[in-house]
Amino acid sequence: MLLDASASGLFPIAPTPFTPDGRIDEGSLDTLIARYLAAGATGVTVLGIMGEAPKLEPEESLAVTARFVAGFGRLPVIVGVSAPGFAAMRWLARAAMEKGAAGVMIAPPTHLRTDDQITGYYRQAIEAIGADIPFVIQDYPLTLTVQMTPKVIRQIVQENPSCVMLKHEDWPGLEKISALRAFQQDGSMRPISILTGNGGLFLDFEMERGADGAMTGYAFPEMLGEVVRLQKAGERDRAHDLFDAHLPLLRYEQQQGVGLAVRKYVMMKRGFIASDAQRKPGSALTAAARAEVDYLLARLARHDPRAAL
Amino acid sequence: MLLDASASGLFPIAPTPFTPDGRIDEGSLDTLIARYLAAGATGVTVLGIMGEAPKLEPEESLAVTARFVAGFGRLPVIVGVSAPGFAAMRWLARAAMEKGAAGVMIAPPTHLRTDDQITGYYRQAIEAIGADIPFVIQDYPLTLTVQMTPKVIRQIVQENPSCVMLKHEDWPGLEKISALRAFQQDGSMRPISILTGNGGLFLDFEMERGADGAMTGYAFPEMLGEVVRLQKAGERDRAHDLFDAHLPLLRYEQQQGVGLAVRKYVMMKRGFIASDAQRKPGSALTAAARAEVDYLLARLARHDPRAAL
Amino acid sequence: MLLDASASGLFPIAPTPFTPDGRIDEGSLDTLIARYLAAGATGVTVLGIMGEAPKLEPEESLAVTARFVAGFGRLPVIVGVSAPGFAAMRWLARAAMEKGAAGVMIAPPTHLRTDDQITGYYRQAIEAIGADIPFVIQDYPLTLTVQMTPKVIRQIVQENPSCVMLKHEDWPGLEKISALRAFQQDGSMRPISILTGNGGLFLDFEMERGADGAMTGYAFPEMLGEVVRLQKAGERDRAHDLFDAHLPLLRYEQQQGVGLAVRKYVMMKRGFIASDAQRKPGSALTAAARAEVDYLLARLARHDPRAAL
Amino acid sequence: MLLDASASGLFPIAPTPFTPDGRIDEGSLDTLIARYLAAGATGVTVLGIMGEAPKLEPEESLAVTARFVAGFGRLPVIVGVSAPGFAAMRWLARAAMEKGAAGVMIAPPTHLRTDDQITGYYRQAIEAIGADIPFVIQDYPLTLTVQMTPKVIRQIVQENPSCVMLKHEDWPGLEKISALRAFQQDGSMRPISILTGNGGLFLDFEMERGADGAMTGYAFPEMLGEVVRLQKAGERDRAHDLFDAHLPLLRYEQQQGVGLAVRKYVMMKRGFIASDAQRKPGSALTAAARAEVDYLLARLARHDPRAAL
Repeated sequence: MLLDASASGLFPIAPTPFTPDGRIDEGSLDTLIARYLAAGATGVTVLGIMGEAPKLEPEESLAVTARFVAGFGRLPVIVGVSAPGFAAMRWLARAAMEKGAAGVMIAPPTHLRTDDQITGYYRQAIEAIGADIPFVIQDYPLTLTVQMTPKVIRQIVQENPSCVMLKHEDWPGLEKISALRAFQQDGSMRPISILTGNGGLFLDFEMERGADGAMTGYAFPEMLGEVVRLQKAGERDRAHDLFDAHLPLLRYEQQQGVGLAVRKYVMMKRGFIASDAQRKPGSALTAAARAEVDYLLARLARHDPRAAL
Repeated sequence: MLLDASASGLFPIAPTPFTPDGRIDEGSLDTLIARYLAAGATGVTVLGIMGEAPKLEPEESLAVTARFVAGFGRLPVIVGVSAPGFAAMRWLARAAMEKGAAGVMIAPPTHLRTDDQITGYYRQAIEAIGADIPFVIQDYPLTLTVQMTPKVIRQIVQENPSCVMLKHEDWPGLEKISALRAFQQDGSMRPISILTGNGGLFLDFEMERGADGAMTGYAFPEMLGEVVRLQKAGERDRAHDLFDAHLPLLRYEQQQGVGLAVRKYVMMKRGFIASDAQRKPGSALTAAARAEVDYLLARLARHDPRAAL
Repeated sequence: MLLDASASGLFPIAPTPFTPDGRIDEGSLDTLIARYLAAGATGVTVLGIMGEAPKLEPEESLAVTARFVAGFGRLPVIVGVSAPGFAAMRWLARAAMEKGAAGVMIAPPTHLRTDDQITGYYRQAIEAIGADIPFVIQDYPLTLTVQMTPKVIRQIVQENPSCVMLKHEDWPGLEKISALRAFQQDGSMRPISILTGNGGLFLDFEMERGADGAMTGYAFPEMLGEVVRLQKAGERDRAHDLFDAHLPLLRYEQQQGVGLAVRKYVMMKRGFIASDAQRKPGSALTAAARAEVDYLLARLARHDPRAAL
Repeated sequence: MLLDASASGLFPIAPTPFTPDGRIDEGSLDTLIARYLAAGATGVTVLGIMGEAPKLEPEESLAVTARFVAGFGRLPVIVGVSAPGFAAMRWLARAAMEKGAAGVMIAPPTHLRTDDQITGYYRQAIEAIGADIPFVIQDYPLTLTVQMTPKVIRQIVQENPSCVMLKHEDWPGLEKISALRAFQQDGSMRPISILTGNGGLFLDFEMERGADGAMTGYAFPEMLGEVVRLQKAGERDRAHDLFDAHLPLLRYEQQQGVGLAVRKYVMMKRGFIASDAQRKPGSALTAAARAEVDYLLARLARHDPRAAL
């Protein structure tokens, strides 16, 4: 089943679990999948920045993809295929789709600057992977340094019928969601799905601006899914109450460079994965940082019993 | 009185209040000063990025400085003097000190890359302004793109006796505070004051890592000062309780580019300034954003009555 | 007399001559002006990057401008007014025009990325300085990191009637000149003057692509002017012969960061200025570099007797 | 035979020849090898930036490597292995060495800023590929945006015994060569080979500063090799005469982004490769640009008959 513009809900960005000696931990993959499904995931994204994708051998990337596809059944699995060259991007995109992926996600390379360079890049990328593969634009200037205006995103959508989703993680980005939804309203852009990332730091309001859901890696995906559902149900205050209870930890996780270490540490404590090991080069938490996370978890547990670990 | 390494507490980063037609609003300057003092400020920083410094004529910069010096009495006023050339930096630094400023703050220009370029820049800047003016290093890679390791900061401190403070706003930056304090402990760096910025997003833990206080522009400076005091008094849980109550709004304010508009809007609602006008080029809040801020204020008011506006 | 789109020929980018102890050398200013006029300058640009503009006090900037205006008589003097804020830009632009400048040059700040940011910046800058001052766009991505497509330049030209010239120093940039001239041909952009910079490294072909002249600081401005004239006269081979003879030295001068030191050294040897001193922070030539320049001059002298020093 | 610090002479950076429909042109590979050897190559570097490496499938990369190894016999083949992740880097490095490569070249990823980040990166990369593989540092800030001081290069050399060569293409960079050779003289750095790139734009003086040879892709590799030999033989004037004759074309080729198209076009005209096709995304020469190159060749032919095509 292919990804389309109706996608919504909770698409966790999955980490890749490793054993302490650096092998892919297949048992943890299965646990992780089970926990994501229990948390209400409506899909999943693998091999993103958070998934340590560049540290995997090509066959490993496919194996991870296949395992998620098997585990998620009829729910869509999106595969990150960003690469410095189109040969590698095409190879992984087509191989992943053969394994059953629902679509791919493409981030722009960091050297792109002008509007024409960005739209041109997506045209060429889609020519390379083929127009039959649904794709997601990743808009993440904080890490990628590439800035896409709403008009540029609209042009990519209009020029490439296989574009079905925006992973929105501009920062600040609330007005961008409103601008894109206005483009849909005035008929100048066809509808796309907008799932938001950036660690979830603005998920509460992103939903109110018109996002369809969350695509990020916070270590309590249940919360992300519940905020999405509450907002869709019009339960604004309850959504914010839940979100605010998690915000101190979520903010701590969203730190660039350190975030993955925090997430894996919390996920390990929660039993999602067996080890918080990263492949080299990886970041590690100091004892002081681990104590800070433990403190945040203890405080969170007063509001959300899932944090009592 | 000159700034020295014992500075601590709350140094708000002051916005520059304008009238809707773009003149400096001197009445609001006085109100702002009174409110900062009432909030427990132990000093203040003017003409920073948040102060719209590049939009002021030189004489205006001095006039703002003089007014803060008069209002703050014996409390230190730090003046941002970052400039593309040393002629302008020297002129403003010396003129500000003559007006009674306690010290100056210098941010590195965005093109600096290597460790030697950064340390060399500070040597030359201090040679230009004179070694008799106490200065603050501004370490803000998120906006300035310049990355200083703890070793580089140590070298600047050791090479320049007039360096007395670090405005710490690296992100993530908790380990940097620990590393710098360890340098003091092992005797390789003389003690400096560390006040933290970055919108206050990690103030709760920065205090625990060894910061001396806060230097940022959040629209409830009282909260910043109270968290500093509570942490110094060992009241960790109460510090976090207060901080967490403000975090949803604080996070909203910390957005790059939009933050100043949010802050001026809240400060206007609080009566700190008469208008939230910015000089051109300025950012403005959409109606949707204003409504979001109002909602955050209403929610905050349940915990902190100062937010009931 | 105001600058207009008919400007052509040789506009040297003037260095600012200093005495060894850092004062502006007014005698050298007069010599420099006389030598530029003797070299066939049809105008001049002062206070550019090469003019060490950020190292000058505001009154010094105006004094330099006034002296060039006096010396150049009816020939146009363009003044670089790029600044981090519009207050300083407006002040210098209006003050320079009152002193008799013919127009101003504005470079985009280095943080601009998207097409809309760039065109928006020029709209706001012109609103700040006033639409009555003719202005030049400086397009220099190698140093400024801002990339403007031909379409962006066209939009700036069409939105701002006071835009009369492009200082073209994109690299590579030959196709950009062709694209802009094609816009004029198809009627989508009104005519502008295009003078080329980037050290002159491609002046030979830039003239063939449609440039109107040179605006750069090579230490043999006579050569630049002669290449422009020869190309306009259809003497292609002679133009290239002259250019190629100078290319080894010109290439040496075009090095980023070191170029100004080379130029001032050669200009001092040629008697254009009394000292090659730069204000701090400045770059200096090593003995090895000076010997290399001397060697290049000796080689050049075989083809161009002006290099026999 | 493994690469060591005694390497010198001419190491062309090889393009990858493609057929117009995008397949690797194996016949042209053999022709290219024969022409390089006839030009006096003492080694070769494949799969660099110029070799369109990111556009190749992994097996293609190995096939190209194997063909060069076979063709170059006992002369060293260096393989570019830069990659966004260490898994891919390790795989290619080890596979290439098994195919008979003499060493690998590693460029730093563009996000590195501080000295510690750069030296840390090389430590981790060497840990990943293994300390038994001789490696070359690529120092190319113009394209990579990473700035390495001489001290940083020294630290990489001293920390990693398998570092045997620097591909020097800093710009400006003459003083860097002098600084590194001074480090060798004062005993603080063990000797390494320095081959220079950056299109050859400063090869004439780089040899005088202590470079061991050239590693770049100019379409007349014979000239590069001859300048190296003449300088080593103390024939300074003859070296510069030859270099200067080629400089107008060499400068034209050195343009970022367009350079490869120019090189392939000239190499096609010279019979080194059958087609100047690039794999997508590629740059193409306009008719105007081709005519300019033809004109430059005709002018060069007056001094160097090899350019009479």
